[in-house]
Amino acid sequence: MPAEPASAARPVAAARRLRLRADRARQLADLLRHQILAGGFPGGILPLEDAIAADYRASRNTVRQALDLLRGEQLVERQPGVGTVVVCEKYPHGLDRLQGLAETLREHGRVTNEVRTVGPVSAPGPVAHRLGLPEHSDVLCVERLRRLNGLPLSLDLSYLPMDIGGRLLGCDLENTDVFRLLEQLTGGPLGHAEITLEAVNADAHSAAVLQAPRGAAVLMLERLTCLPDGRPVDLEFIRFRGDRITMGGVLHRSL
Amino acid sequence: MPAEPASAARPVAAARRLRLRADRARQLADLLRHQILAGGFPGGILPLEDAIAADYRASRNTVRQALDLLRGEQLVERQPGVGTVVVCEKYPHGLDRLQGLAETLREHGRVTNEVRTVGPVSAPGPVAHRLGLPEHSDVLCVERLRRLNGLPLSLDLSYLPMDIGGRLLGCDLENTDVFRLLEQLTGGPLGHAEITLEAVNADAHSAAVLQAPRGAAVLMLERLTCLPDGRPVDLEFIRFRGDRITMGGVLHRSL
Repeated sequence: MPAEPASAARPVAAARRLRLRADRARQLADLLRHQILAGGFPGGILPLEDAIAADYRASRNTVRQALDLLRGEQLVERQPGVGTVVVCEKYPHGLDRLQGLAETLREHGRVTNEVRTVGPVSAPGPVAHRLGLPEHSDVLCVERLRRLNGLPLSLDLSYLPMDIGGRLLGCDLENTDVFRLLEQLTGGPLGHAEITLEAVNADAHSAAVLQAPRGAAVLMLERLTCLPDGRPVDLEFIRFRGDRITMGGVLHRSL
Repeated sequence: MPAEPASAARPVAAARRLRLRADRARQLADLLRHQILAGGFPGGILPLEDAIAADYRASRNTVRQALDLLRGEQLVERQPGVGTVVVCEKYPHGLDRLQGLAETLREHGRVTNEVRTVGPVSAPGPVAHRLGLPEHSDVLCVERLRRLNGLPLSLDLSYLPMDIGGRLLGCDLENTDVFRLLEQLTGGPLGHAEITLEAVNADAHSAAVLQAPRGAAVLMLERLTCLPDGRPVDLEFIRFRGDRITMGGVLHRSL
């Protein structure tokens, strides 16, 4: 193969350098993100760019680009006279056991629920099927916008069989997890849940309800919760604001 | 409180109807999404709008709006003369035990890895700390773009201690999960991993590498994997394309 003329090679080498810097900036942003979320910067203030550059053996350009990425994620902000400060409020939701929102965020503040919809609907086929009910049985449909210390965290839609769900109608849905109410109503602990997690871009309407930008990344949780005897009692579709929730747990290699 | 004049009440009622329709469209989209991902539509073709409207007791406007949402998520497409067809390739990643990508997607095809970076780097403080090493120890840094049947699925960055990581250098990283290689090298199964999952919008560079639109929702997994004796051996930052991966598992109420 003939050697490339120097005039062509130069832009190729420059493009490669830019690509490598973009890679390094992302890699650095990943490390800083972890420290931000773990509360690893005292007072929520990041070190000066020079200090980050020295700590991470990175160039100042790489550091600037990494901080740009974190600003793009709304994790940090540049404040004149102060520097780069942490501005996110991201809360850890447990993934190790089945927990309601107020329960898992107990240490972080108060969860309140704005009940947007509550009432019986005729169950569409897939809802009836997953809840083990005849098609078009009535089910209770509850939609809540959930807040932590007043900040919107998630939009939750639940379908419950009427024999159990109907008894929720008189309960304090605004201040209590449905899981806790179900346990009070059934007189014992819940059993297990099948869950699916996805990342999706928020549609315009969900974004507006969650007070997030259109297209914002949303952590979408589908959860089918069952009683200890295996009877499904709560089918949920939950949209968490991606900038406010992380899910954490421990996985084992052998079961 | 004085009654609102009819002229003001009318737009309010209209806005309320639009809001309710938007809510119902999202609720219907959630149900259809589940069926799409579960392979519940024979031949990957959705029923006609009228049939969906009848099945779900929804208006045609609501059905259209729900299908618009699913098109926005790139799950379905309208094909002239055929109807609404499923176009997504979304694969289930297990969340019940610690598994590598090729392992968890075994039934879905062949995972190949494009090794973008591999070599020793001086460990920044937080990496050294999490791997239990002195600051600025050398660690192996491996970045791979991972594909299933040729489609980009994830961008994985791993840091490993050199005593173990160094031995990966001669291994077939392009066709083998790092977990499998680690088990071959250490002569036994891995122990456990601490994981964190988040939904983030892809920055421009990650999006380009993953061949996804800028801002696309990404499922971000941080995973610190340990040997059975608790020694951390693999710190990973993994960006999954949100439109190609779901994470699924079972949670129990009591531990």
